[in-house]
Amino acid sequence: MIVAVIGDGSCSADTASLAEEVGRLVAESGAAVVCGGLGGVMEAACRGAKSAGGLTIGVLPGRSRRDANPYVDIPIVTGLGEARNVIVVSSGQSVIAVRGGFGTLSEIAHALKQGIPVVGLRSWQLSREGWDEAKGMIPATDPADAVQKALALAID
Amino acid sequence: MIVAVIGDGSCSADTASLAEEVGRLVAESGAAVVCGGLGGVMEAACRGAKSAGGLTIGVLPGRSRRDANPYVDIPIVTGLGEARNVIVVSSGQSVIAVRGGFGTLSEIAHALKQGIPVVGLRSWQLSREGWDEAKGMIPATDPADAVQKALALAID
Amino acid sequence: MIVAVIGDGSCSADTASLAEEVGRLVAESGAAVVCGGLGGVMEAACRGAKSAGGLTIGVLPGRSRRDANPYVDIPIVTGLGEARNVIVVSSGQSVIAVRGGFGTLSEIAHALKQGIPVVGLRSWQLSREGWDEAKGMIPATDPADAVQKALALAID
Amino acid sequence: MIVAVIGDGSCSADTASLAEEVGRLVAESGAAVVCGGLGGVMEAACRGAKSAGGLTIGVLPGRSRRDANPYVDIPIVTGLGEARNVIVVSSGQSVIAVRGGFGTLSEIAHALKQGIPVVGLRSWQLSREGWDEAKGMIPATDPADAVQKALALAID
Repeated sequence: MIVAVIGDGSCSADTASLAEEVGRLVAESGAAVVCGGLGGVMEAACRGAKSAGGLTIGVLPGRSRRDANPYVDIPIVTGLGEARNVIVVSSGQSVIAVRGGFGTLSEIAHALKQGIPVVGLRSWQLSREGWDEAKGMIPATDPADAVQKALALAID
Repeated sequence: MIVAVIGDGSCSADTASLAEEVGRLVAESGAAVVCGGLGGVMEAACRGAKSAGGLTIGVLPGRSRRDANPYVDIPIVTGLGEARNVIVVSSGQSVIAVRGGFGTLSEIAHALKQGIPVVGLRSWQLSREGWDEAKGMIPATDPADAVQKALALAID
Repeated sequence: MIVAVIGDGSCSADTASLAEEVGRLVAESGAAVVCGGLGGVMEAACRGAKSAGGLTIGVLPGRSRRDANPYVDIPIVTGLGEARNVIVVSSGQSVIAVRGGFGTLSEIAHALKQGIPVVGLRSWQLSREGWDEAKGMIPATDPADAVQKALALAID
Repeated sequence: MIVAVIGDGSCSADTASLAEEVGRLVAESGAAVVCGGLGGVMEAACRGAKSAGGLTIGVLPGRSRRDANPYVDIPIVTGLGEARNVIVVSSGQSVIAVRGGFGTLSEIAHALKQGIPVVGLRSWQLSREGWDEAKGMIPATDPADAVQKALALAID
């Protein structure tokens, strides 16, 4: 099982704390974490996963494995820039979004487009004329709730 | 000048009518239309642009130029699937979103991430904890308003 | 009809002269030139095409339309780095390789993989255990020969 | 350490045997194998790596993790088609090519373009006007020789 954790490349201590807890709980469940491999939420999630002995995969936008944060076990070097966002979420069987900016929003949208469940923790709210909320992100109240939902809803 | 027009691959007659008007007005201003090259909003925008003698570019997700709608002058064949969404908006100097689903939402997010202005016509509304609405999409009331704003805000 | 012209981003005056002649002859046939949009062979081919009133498309690796050489009419901004090479050749109905380094070799290989004919002008020679030369590039003696072959072999 | 192993998606028993031995020796050295995740040489290399308790990463062209061969531990789902070839080699610190067709040739070229060493086992031979053979692939006589060279030359 692989769970994608997405969020900002730089973030507040509060947000990092949430992401670290998410990473730790994912790893404790036996699942691997895939993320964008950089700092902020990505680094915090990897740090949490490593604290529980988990496996971490970083899908990097640039051309050097050295861009990966120190908690990435397997750096995937894409050189694709923002287009690597698609790969991050496609490689997860479910996605947990921790807050996040426009890059994260693009990942949420790519995941939902492909039918991969997205659990949101203090993340984006979406609406549109005629929008059916039930088709969008699943809100979570805290890291434990987010991880539980992500594991329960993961696609095969 | 190149303006990206984005939206669903299949859409209602009302939405198509908006997209066609957008395409026509973009072409009348002398700008080219870049889009995802398929049906729905993309086809309507191209049809509108061609009705005014404009130039149309379709950045296709698949591997065949034959996937392009009949109003595409220049098919760009990517074979990248959804990752081609990044190219559609990056190739525009501004973006007009006509309604749209998750694919369109990913394009909106990629554009905003890169600082490319996005004008929305009955499209997504975004919010998040601490969100500054002024950093997001620019709402438009009708096709003429959308095209005027897209041309005025286009990046160099 | 769109013909891809590929080759080094910096090249000798002799090689540029060949590429310029190729671009001019493609444009005189009424076909558009698609290339990687940068300097060297790409710029020479675009300059040749514009000298004959042709249309030129540059599929750029970076994130700015300003990276395009001054003879590109339509910059396609990919941000994909080397992965954009696939798009350059996939968007041509045939390919003309003018000499070229490893980037060009990757484009030749991607084109042949997809069944897009590649005409080589002083370009790579390929061999392998059990290799059938007839399945590879078509050699040309000069720009006129290259363009004639590229137009005759172009896929639909 | 991560070594990329590249080659055809379907291959003879002889070629599969070479690839399996390569995978086994890479894993015995403690390095992980990254490949394109499908059949033929990719599957044989993964099978060999798993027989020695190694870790295997498959960078898939399609949109489903189920496309991966049964010996892939970590499927990376790209949906990029042939453009994923760039990621396969960029994620290796060196590359071993076992025979291979045009897809493999594109990977060899992308690797050499980026300065990643490529060791060839019964693979492509490259030449060009003015070509310096020393800048190309490193030939190997057998799997042990290939793996030894790939490990010795791996970039940091």
